[in-house]
Amino acid sequence: MRLTSLISISNLVVHQSHAFLNGGAFVGNQIVGRASTSLTRGGRQVLKAVATAPVVTESLTKAAVEARGLAMDSIGYCHSGHLGLPLGCAEIGAVLFGHDSGLTYNPEDPQWINRDRFVLSAGHGSMFLYSWLHLAGYDLPLEEVKNFRRFHSMTPGHPEFPNSEHNTPGVEATTGPLGQGVANAAGMAAAAKMAAARFNTPSHEIFSNTIVALCGDGCIQEGVSSEAACFSAQEGLDNLIVVYDANDVTLDKMAEFTQKEDVAKRYEAYGWDVVTIDGHDLNAVSKALADAKSNKNGNPKLIIAKTVIGKGISAIEGTNAAHGEAGVKYVDESRKELGLPEEKWYVSPETRSFFKEKASSLKDTYNKWQDTYKAWQSANPDLAKLLQSGIDQSTPSAQELLKVIPEFDQTKNIATREAGSVVLQPLADALPLYVSGSADLHGSNKNYIKNGGDFGVNFGKSYTGRNFYYGIREHAMGSILNGINYFGLFRASGATFLVFADYLRATIRVASLAELPVGYIFTHDSIGVGEDGPTHQPVETVSGLRVIPNLDVIRPADPEETAAAYAASIERKEGPTALILTRQNVRTLSEIPVSVRREGTLKGAYVAKKETSDLQLIILASGSEVQWAMDVAKDIPGARVVSMPSMYRFDMQPESYKESVLPAACTKRISIEAGVTPLWWKYVGTAGKVLGTDKFGLSAPGDKVMEVFGMDYKGLKREVEAYM
Amino acid sequence: MRLTSLISISNLVVHQSHAFLNGGAFVGNQIVGRASTSLTRGGRQVLKAVATAPVVTESLTKAAVEARGLAMDSIGYCHSGHLGLPLGCAEIGAVLFGHDSGLTYNPEDPQWINRDRFVLSAGHGSMFLYSWLHLAGYDLPLEEVKNFRRFHSMTPGHPEFPNSEHNTPGVEATTGPLGQGVANAAGMAAAAKMAAARFNTPSHEIFSNTIVALCGDGCIQEGVSSEAACFSAQEGLDNLIVVYDANDVTLDKMAEFTQKEDVAKRYEAYGWDVVTIDGHDLNAVSKALADAKSNKNGNPKLIIAKTVIGKGISAIEGTNAAHGEAGVKYVDESRKELGLPEEKWYVSPETRSFFKEKASSLKDTYNKWQDTYKAWQSANPDLAKLLQSGIDQSTPSAQELLKVIPEFDQTKNIATREAGSVVLQPLADALPLYVSGSADLHGSNKNYIKNGGDFGVNFGKSYTGRNFYYGIREHAMGSILNGINYFGLFRASGATFLVFADYLRATIRVASLAELPVGYIFTHDSIGVGEDGPTHQPVETVSGLRVIPNLDVIRPADPEETAAAYAASIERKEGPTALILTRQNVRTLSEIPVSVRREGTLKGAYVAKKETSDLQLIILASGSEVQWAMDVAKDIPGARVVSMPSMYRFDMQPESYKESVLPAACTKRISIEAGVTPLWWKYVGTAGKVLGTDKFGLSAPGDKVMEVFGMDYKGLKREVEAYM
Repeated sequence: MRLTSLISISNLVVHQSHAFLNGGAFVGNQIVGRASTSLTRGGRQVLKAVATAPVVTESLTKAAVEARGLAMDSIGYCHSGHLGLPLGCAEIGAVLFGHDSGLTYNPEDPQWINRDRFVLSAGHGSMFLYSWLHLAGYDLPLEEVKNFRRFHSMTPGHPEFPNSEHNTPGVEATTGPLGQGVANAAGMAAAAKMAAARFNTPSHEIFSNTIVALCGDGCIQEGVSSEAACFSAQEGLDNLIVVYDANDVTLDKMAEFTQKEDVAKRYEAYGWDVVTIDGHDLNAVSKALADAKSNKNGNPKLIIAKTVIGKGISAIEGTNAAHGEAGVKYVDESRKELGLPEEKWYVSPETRSFFKEKASSLKDTYNKWQDTYKAWQSANPDLAKLLQSGIDQSTPSAQELLKVIPEFDQTKNIATREAGSVVLQPLADALPLYVSGSADLHGSNKNYIKNGGDFGVNFGKSYTGRNFYYGIREHAMGSILNGINYFGLFRASGATFLVFADYLRATIRVASLAELPVGYIFTHDSIGVGEDGPTHQPVETVSGLRVIPNLDVIRPADPEETAAAYAASIERKEGPTALILTRQNVRTLSEIPVSVRREGTLKGAYVAKKETSDLQLIILASGSEVQWAMDVAKDIPGARVVSMPSMYRFDMQPESYKESVLPAACTKRISIEAGVTPLWWKYVGTAGKVLGTDKFGLSAPGDKVMEVFGMDYKGLKREVEAYM
Repeated sequence: MRLTSLISISNLVVHQSHAFLNGGAFVGNQIVGRASTSLTRGGRQVLKAVATAPVVTESLTKAAVEARGLAMDSIGYCHSGHLGLPLGCAEIGAVLFGHDSGLTYNPEDPQWINRDRFVLSAGHGSMFLYSWLHLAGYDLPLEEVKNFRRFHSMTPGHPEFPNSEHNTPGVEATTGPLGQGVANAAGMAAAAKMAAARFNTPSHEIFSNTIVALCGDGCIQEGVSSEAACFSAQEGLDNLIVVYDANDVTLDKMAEFTQKEDVAKRYEAYGWDVVTIDGHDLNAVSKALADAKSNKNGNPKLIIAKTVIGKGISAIEGTNAAHGEAGVKYVDESRKELGLPEEKWYVSPETRSFFKEKASSLKDTYNKWQDTYKAWQSANPDLAKLLQSGIDQSTPSAQELLKVIPEFDQTKNIATREAGSVVLQPLADALPLYVSGSADLHGSNKNYIKNGGDFGVNFGKSYTGRNFYYGIREHAMGSILNGINYFGLFRASGATFLVFADYLRATIRVASLAELPVGYIFTHDSIGVGEDGPTHQPVETVSGLRVIPNLDVIRPADPEETAAAYAASIERKEGPTALILTRQNVRTLSEIPVSVRREGTLKGAYVAKKETSDLQLIILASGSEVQWAMDVAKDIPGARVVSMPSMYRFDMQPESYKESVLPAACTKRISIEAGVTPLWWKYVGTAGKVLGTDKFGLSAPGDKVMEVFGMDYKGLKREVEAYM
């Protein structure tokens, strides 16, 4: 069989050189293949080129057919799922998992630190991933492929990063919310660059990971991928390859209904290398991947693979009906057309043996790497220890971490964001693999690691830099944070104004679900922001975050609570933590012993002031309002103050501790927090009273706004008096 | 003074024609000016062109200087705010508000329906807007300019669309959260296209609005503007002009630190016309605006205005220090350098008189339009009546609307999303100015107006179409919905899966703050989604929305509650409404009279089943869980069921109604909702019990997932028995 590949030249490339008509076809900045005839496809100039060396084998072709069969059978069996991508990208899967130009991995050691990462950004096409992981020899038995989308299977509807519910080896990211996977991959690529810069030595290369994401039109349309694309080019992530399954179809309609843009040109504008290929041509896929992997020119790579959605179900392929499970009614006839036997979930002995051989060849690479690693380990024992600590995620306990944070000057009143900056420095010294970053608000968020350097290229940046400049791209920041944490070595945190947590909320949800230890530093935490007004004053944001399962939200009251909050965020491995910090100064609560404030914060809530007569009243507060609770309670012997920086942590305490802090016998309770009130009813009870800001704020100096909303000493005193 | 303008040619344009070196400079697709010498600026080829006809006047130059003075004085006075943009864009402001090539407006009638709209997407530069609105003669007295950022001033920190707190004439959108303003403008441009298509006649043009947004690097970097840019080109919004204040600086650093992309090329890839100019050259600004306004070629226009941030404060202009208020310490010397007198907030008699003349000339245009309008009105009385109803936002009451919705077949069980589809049709018939749309999920959200047609161009779309295809761009959809509603004629609603409400949450916040009557149709509302798994199963999302002030969140239990929910969303004018609908079928609660379900929904909660003996227990539920509450309570004489579709509405009822539904005497209460539980404590009380899903869901058939989480008849029965 003589094979040809379709290679398209985007406009820019044509513009960059006019040589293309004379036989040299430009792809990104490289010449590939030899142009023969030109034709037009999808409105873009396309060249039909003879590939320089055929790489396709009968085995890959066969594997692609059988992967199609697996997807059809699993989706058909449960009558649910998405046929479009697994069928349309079967050849891409064959090359990725079956050919040298594809991924470097070891199915026996899915956690191998130098493996390439594959992210299925179009997560709905999960049967693509499961089929290929199974064929490639990962510990994903055929039984589990059959159990697709069933209760407690290893093959949930969308890929889920191994967590306490699932452990599907080879799944590198939780995907489905579109666009985020591309940004996750950018985060992984950044982490890989950092790993290489931090751990490789002139004589030993430990890290050389390539990150490959497969995405669809949905991912390309989402803004988060645009942001991530810009960041990736900016920071020179040439180890990132995005394969764009360009099938010209979205769920509702043909893609042209919503997408007339020139995607190639757009990515070139970001600074990516772009090539357009026929995604069903194994040679073209292989060549594009090989070129992308080898060309370390500083540019990320976009491979636009023109495919036919649902290819293999001739009744509906190429239409939006092929996207979901509608095609299952044609499965029987389609399997026949593909030449598959009647046996469902059929994998031929030839394919089994092909992947056995593939695994063995991959094992050689793996073993060679192990030799390198051992040599590196002997030569660099300290580095090796550091690396191991990253692999093990062996961060110290919060108590240990707190030892490196000196007590604050108890006579000085500072903002908790400022306290955060102070706390961060010794923590960063103690944790070399902790990295920070901000969406263009380093100066305001104050989470800059002072001796950490800046991550990236040019302008004095370096890949060893520990401060990320995400630009004004909060959504991408959130997904990149997830990506860095998925990579598994670095602990990444990022910052913006609290009110803009909304921009990255969709990624916080994924971090919570995937149980990633991401840290969020959200400053400017209430109407106390002042003059910037309601667009910049969070009122509902803290509560909005608190309802996300598995997210710890900590709103410390003063510098010592901030120290504990930071330490807690680093100690926590089972999910993300959001630190909620003030813009404005708060009173340092020097009347409470430092250890009480620190340890109390770790428990979520604690008695900040104990009543000096019979308990009459409990004032609950968080963050900047604790100072007022303390001030007001000072003059009321029967009043207790409970500082509650984290509802999440408090809820997890044993009942005995909860009762010791909030005795059931005392139903006279009042809460104050400069935010919406509904969540406080749980702790205040029916007989209680909740004080807060249940409407949007206003533009005026912060103290004035606080006063207007009663979020100050006078306001609280007035309400407490009225209540008692 | 001889004036020249710098006009850059982006790569594509160069590529499209090679004539540029011979004297013809391409801007977008048009030749402007005559090239003289070429130079390089900011890495892009730039042509120095002699403008064909100087349009600058001494008056505009003077006005720009005085506008700078106003910004310096106001920001200096309150020591807060952002100097960078008002100073860097002073010439742009002068042309926009002072020259024919700029905006068409009437300061005496800021609600004039054919005015051009100006959106300051970079909302932090609010003093730009206030200065120019004041100079242009809007009812924004100098006193209010002086009161910038003070309590209850008309000049809050970021521009706020007139609402119950503020009424600043000329402010067309609440901006500050970056990127959204560009998308708001796209929404306004879409609304203007629709207005023209719906109301203009061959003999009378009532609508010819141009929409101008001014944005900065932050807006350009945000993904939401990317999404909106793609949508705008797709739908041919050539009435949209985005002026990009390209000052090469972001808050933290020089922009090149985070932004190496070629923005011009990127926008060309979307399908925009792009021109790069010197933003301080009045001629160039004027020419670019005039060209952009007149060139109705189907493409939106991007004017990249190279500016010097903070221009006028020589000590820091052009650096990131000029972004905020840091420059106020140089104000005195800078004012002198600019030639301003010592008097603060100085406006010369010449400038006053210039804008008086300008207003008078604008008034001529306005008066001519009034003549046209009157003629049109006489010729088209029905159309005029419809238009007036849009201007007045005179939608019928929910009770009236419910009259057009027939009762459902009470024997059939359908999903509430399906009920939504049924309900939408008569409502859409009754409300010709109501428009719908979806982020590529029309088939799933089922909010398609069946006889409404599709909005846009090509593929059978038309600007009269009432169904918007937003593509897979939820964030832009949210902002575009705001933009359509800002425009003031149409009531726009949009849809996606509930779990992806997170993607547009930042825009829902703005809609709530700006009191826009946006409708959100969020379907697939719980773990009942089933096989798609936890990435697609909202558990926290409903509660996350409920905490947003001024957002009504309604989760109906069955078709009749859905009818009322839809009607309520249309009746409500003071803010947005989110309808939360099921994917799966629910039992139609035929045992409750239709009128009780409908009217009860409008009140937020109601007694769905009254106890038949002494009240022992109240079961509270919402949405799909109400059916289980009814089924379980059927066998318990002392049990009452309260259906609570909207906490927001219930909270606003008089105490007497609340007591009638939830008598304080009955503290035995249990709630069930397939979502996180914390918000229910407010209604259930200390002695109560809350049932829900406080962790992420899992992938399995929906019934199975519901069973696993106890969100079914058996689960509720078990818990109720244990509780009693």
